[in-house]
Amino acid sequence: MRKKWLVSVLVMLTLLAFPVSAFAAAEGPTNIELQSGLNSAFTFLAVVLVFLMQGGFALLEAGSTRMKNAGHIAGKTILTLGISVIAFWALGFGLGFGNGNAFFGTTGFFLSGDQMAASFESLAFSDVPLTVKFVFHLAFAAVSLAIACGGMAERAKMSVYIVFGTLYTIIMYPVVAHWVWGGGWLAELGMQDFAGSTVVHLTGATAALVATILLKPRIGKYNKDGKPNIIPGHNQVYSVLGVILLWIGWFGFNPGSTLTALDDGFFGYVALTTNVAAAAGGVAALLISWAVLGKSDIPSMLNGVLAALVAITGACAFVEPWAALVIGALAGIITFFTAQYFDRKGIDDPIYAFSVHGVAGMWGAISTGLFATPELAEHAGVGQAGLFYGGGFHQLGVQLLGLVGAFAFVLVVSFIILGGMKAIMGIRVTEEEETMGLDISEHGTYGYPEQMKHAESKSNGGGTFSS
Amino acid sequence: MRKKWLVSVLVMLTLLAFPVSAFAAAEGPTNIELQSGLNSAFTFLAVVLVFLMQGGFALLEAGSTRMKNAGHIAGKTILTLGISVIAFWALGFGLGFGNGNAFFGTTGFFLSGDQMAASFESLAFSDVPLTVKFVFHLAFAAVSLAIACGGMAERAKMSVYIVFGTLYTIIMYPVVAHWVWGGGWLAELGMQDFAGSTVVHLTGATAALVATILLKPRIGKYNKDGKPNIIPGHNQVYSVLGVILLWIGWFGFNPGSTLTALDDGFFGYVALTTNVAAAAGGVAALLISWAVLGKSDIPSMLNGVLAALVAITGACAFVEPWAALVIGALAGIITFFTAQYFDRKGIDDPIYAFSVHGVAGMWGAISTGLFATPELAEHAGVGQAGLFYGGGFHQLGVQLLGLVGAFAFVLVVSFIILGGMKAIMGIRVTEEEETMGLDISEHGTYGYPEQMKHAESKSNGGGTFSS
Amino acid sequence: MRKKWLVSVLVMLTLLAFPVSAFAAAEGPTNIELQSGLNSAFTFLAVVLVFLMQGGFALLEAGSTRMKNAGHIAGKTILTLGISVIAFWALGFGLGFGNGNAFFGTTGFFLSGDQMAASFESLAFSDVPLTVKFVFHLAFAAVSLAIACGGMAERAKMSVYIVFGTLYTIIMYPVVAHWVWGGGWLAELGMQDFAGSTVVHLTGATAALVATILLKPRIGKYNKDGKPNIIPGHNQVYSVLGVILLWIGWFGFNPGSTLTALDDGFFGYVALTTNVAAAAGGVAALLISWAVLGKSDIPSMLNGVLAALVAITGACAFVEPWAALVIGALAGIITFFTAQYFDRKGIDDPIYAFSVHGVAGMWGAISTGLFATPELAEHAGVGQAGLFYGGGFHQLGVQLLGLVGAFAFVLVVSFIILGGMKAIMGIRVTEEEETMGLDISEHGTYGYPEQMKHAESKSNGGGTFSS
Repeated sequence: MRKKWLVSVLVMLTLLAFPVSAFAAAEGPTNIELQSGLNSAFTFLAVVLVFLMQGGFALLEAGSTRMKNAGHIAGKTILTLGISVIAFWALGFGLGFGNGNAFFGTTGFFLSGDQMAASFESLAFSDVPLTVKFVFHLAFAAVSLAIACGGMAERAKMSVYIVFGTLYTIIMYPVVAHWVWGGGWLAELGMQDFAGSTVVHLTGATAALVATILLKPRIGKYNKDGKPNIIPGHNQVYSVLGVILLWIGWFGFNPGSTLTALDDGFFGYVALTTNVAAAAGGVAALLISWAVLGKSDIPSMLNGVLAALVAITGACAFVEPWAALVIGALAGIITFFTAQYFDRKGIDDPIYAFSVHGVAGMWGAISTGLFATPELAEHAGVGQAGLFYGGGFHQLGVQLLGLVGAFAFVLVVSFIILGGMKAIMGIRVTEEEETMGLDISEHGTYGYPEQMKHAESKSNGGGTFSS
Repeated sequence: MRKKWLVSVLVMLTLLAFPVSAFAAAEGPTNIELQSGLNSAFTFLAVVLVFLMQGGFALLEAGSTRMKNAGHIAGKTILTLGISVIAFWALGFGLGFGNGNAFFGTTGFFLSGDQMAASFESLAFSDVPLTVKFVFHLAFAAVSLAIACGGMAERAKMSVYIVFGTLYTIIMYPVVAHWVWGGGWLAELGMQDFAGSTVVHLTGATAALVATILLKPRIGKYNKDGKPNIIPGHNQVYSVLGVILLWIGWFGFNPGSTLTALDDGFFGYVALTTNVAAAAGGVAALLISWAVLGKSDIPSMLNGVLAALVAITGACAFVEPWAALVIGALAGIITFFTAQYFDRKGIDDPIYAFSVHGVAGMWGAISTGLFATPELAEHAGVGQAGLFYGGGFHQLGVQLLGLVGAFAFVLVVSFIILGGMKAIMGIRVTEEEETMGLDISEHGTYGYPEQMKHAESKSNGGGTFSS
Repeated sequence: MRKKWLVSVLVMLTLLAFPVSAFAAAEGPTNIELQSGLNSAFTFLAVVLVFLMQGGFALLEAGSTRMKNAGHIAGKTILTLGISVIAFWALGFGLGFGNGNAFFGTTGFFLSGDQMAASFESLAFSDVPLTVKFVFHLAFAAVSLAIACGGMAERAKMSVYIVFGTLYTIIMYPVVAHWVWGGGWLAELGMQDFAGSTVVHLTGATAALVATILLKPRIGKYNKDGKPNIIPGHNQVYSVLGVILLWIGWFGFNPGSTLTALDDGFFGYVALTTNVAAAAGGVAALLISWAVLGKSDIPSMLNGVLAALVAITGACAFVEPWAALVIGALAGIITFFTAQYFDRKGIDDPIYAFSVHGVAGMWGAISTGLFATPELAEHAGVGQAGLFYGGGFHQLGVQLLGLVGAFAFVLVVSFIILGGMKAIMGIRVTEEEETMGLDISEHGTYGYPEQMKHAESKSNGGGTFSS
């Protein structure tokens, strides 16, 4: 009797349980598929935001240079974006993230779809489909190229952007990316570079530094005695909007680099550290400029925001909010002084690409080695705690090795490539062309035809001010 | 026999059901986790969009003022953003949304991560992780501060933005936010303010009004007989792009305030009402300006779009689309007339911050009390139906109480804070500084150095036109 | 004995299985609901991106025209956006996507919420809630109207935008959309137009062509002998930023048109083809301009990017990446030559709306009929393989029929509507008004009051250059 009753209950329970579980599984996508879809959509938002940074760079660079070069400067941003898309699709993505050796990848060229996923083992940790990962890493590569080209402003020939842009996207960026993110030797050592202080920013900035050196200063930048003049940018509203777009783009850059909206909302934590750092960098740079120059300087504040964002890019997932505040504030202050230092030393870097992305990129790598907490390093599964959190000098050493390695590699290759280009095709416009402006010399029309017509009769030809 | 057969079927069914259900549950995140992740990602999109509004404000304000102040105006937007990030992280978020009393929160300062969620009971209704909620509310606080600073344009000292920005972010905004959204006394009464017509816009605009009054009108704004002159903004393209960015930002502001992509796509409904209102406000303001002024006026249309967006911000989740059309159109028309009214009355509000965000914010609170439907009020779980939907005067009364309370509080505190600052440190630049422009006086360089150099020799020094 | 043991195991298994499956189903939303929510959020991102294209058009058009019209050009973008929101909400959405006949829909006017889903059977294939679908299609309709208005630049009366904008949004766009996407006769035939090369771009561009013809060329565009002068746009930085915003908007346009973040990340594939095409179009157009004109031409490059994006809009989900490269590059080259051709033939299309959106839109429809692969056509469930993939001429024929049908319909209706408007109310400003600029003539204030004041004394009144 008892058994019968038991069996009946059993039957009922089973009949109830079966359809519920069966339908839960049968109707709609599985939880694994939903997770992948959710992470894809989240990553796609990041892709869009990082692409938006191209608008930020176009505005920041155009705003920080002169009217006679504005169309050229803005236009070449689109050109280098186009170059990087094609070159990264064809070769760069495979060289950077394809399976290969400790130095570069050798599979996955000319991506044709998700069926090539086996060629990209270094990206297998995430469930985001390969094509979405591709546009994500493409967006990063294009940002790195935009940084690299920043150092060339107002004197490089248009053709340089095509040749250099191609070579940068297939030789320089992918190699460093492979080292750190593609399973290369720095990944093996446990270098912590969450979203690319070193990979994206220092790499780009080092190429920019070499370009700056090889191109030599702009006409009128230095007096005969070597003292620098200020060549102010023509439009601070552009620069400000550019920095706002870059700040917003960094929501994709840093939080987006989690590649997941799950993980208990860890991306929100990254957004917290990123924003605290950015704010601290901007405010600190404004105040230091006020103290040093006697006036609060808008371009210095903008550089402070960007430098802080660059520095926190590597550290954002490894440090506490208060450390982010310190990292950001110090980035803003360091960049303020190094920008002035390079200016005095004869390096004419019109948009301060090396100070903002290079020096702050180095500081980002170092600061991670100082402030990384054991919990966050374990959460990321990369490296160890930093010096200030009981990790000793190990992680700091890895970070220094990584930044020196990346810096040295890009420095040497850039000198070879840009030096070769200088010898073979020339990289700088003529003095006459530079004086008339690159809008006319390279493209045959002014970016501001109506305003320049009025200006021509009155301008001293350079928008140069004595400092 | 029969039993045996039954048991066999049972065994098979169970063996089938067990692994299916077990795997469905074991593989990948749970549905609860997926829901939270999805809502996080959705909210993150909203965060980004609301941050983008900073770009909108920078452009709108710079475009609506004069060339000699453009760098300053745009630049201070980044400064106040930076200030608000730090101040809101340190104190504002805890004061606004932390556990506390009916007036302000007393927990959750210096947010360090999601483990502090217990300090924010008022936000526990949503499954979005705390750090994502933080950047969401941070974005709102920064918008409110940007509105407040709008009234100061073209004559406040740079230092005012630092001091006032800090105090606004830790005293004024969080208190009103706590009242309505943080479990405070207006939340208890059931005030309906979905995305902040009152909390964000009226609060900011009231502070702007006080700043406008204490700073006094710009030089040249009023003739000796008290008649106002028009001081046109220098760049309507900036203003238009600014309004487009703000409109887009409002997709985050209103639909994003649902904090969920589920709920049968209710956020889509909010997007519908929001856009219908915005469109109606712009078209109505353009037509009314045409009728009154004899020409269709672009700045009036832009103000109409924004006023409609401000008004629908509180009402968007409570009203039907046709009501949104009426609310938006009336907001556009009301703002057109009040902007002219305040101008005539000697209140020089360069970007019409109080008319666009204050008057329309009040109208948003009132209109919700008129048009809220019983179904939507029940869906939101806040308050009751409005006057036109059988709710009588109860909800309208609550709305009026809320807006008067917020207005009075911010008015008094703003007078104390800005009045104190005026007495202690001064809030306005000198006449000479104002005439030369704040770009030079506050920052030492023009925002448009090349154009201003040309202009200097010919300008009457003010860009002022007789009306 | 054995049976007892079996029953015990069965009981245990069932008891284990039951709660697991029951809880999995009971806690949180179902997988179906999560899928819908995820697709909603993904689509919402697309909505926002396509709305951002309004900013892109405002900048591109303002940048490509003269200073004296800048406020007007930018401002009318907001006006037409407002018009399209109201008209599409009231009538356009129902006419386009409501249930009806082969030519237009007859249900679903004045959308009030998701409960109207039964009125939109053509959209039932997707699980995205109706209100989200509405804002998605609204964003597309508004883009199409912006394209249509591009041909009117610098000479149409403000009132034209109101009347034409309304009629376009309720008569022209919805009908073509219904044919292809709303279950109409081209949908029946299997026309492949993934995101609207034909529906959005060719439709808008054809109306723009008619407007261009009926309005006649701008004063000063042609010499007495019929030779065209170049009237350069006043701000290439605007144009560049506009194109970057449009490029970014296209991440919503094309990948977003999948309406799903699932489907193994197929949207990522669409992003891949879209970006490869855009890059190829920009680079190809720059190089061809260099070869033909002797200088690399920035506006030609920008048009190349846009033309490639327009062409790949229809093809993006049907072709391989290498085909996207070819389609994009050819779009850039074709548009370069057709822009010059129409210019010579007396059609003054200030922003090359018909070449960029019309000719490239046609090429997009044709190229799909050439390059569509059988696998991707099957995946999309629309049409067949193209000519180069063994599909013969069938699909190509359908594509040609579709584009000719859409072109002919819009051409005829536009001539009737704009011709009627020309006869009844006039569509062009007076010669005097055009010469002084539409900012003053239509709105009573310059978009750049300070700059135009300086310019007035020196300008030749037109910003016209001999070519």
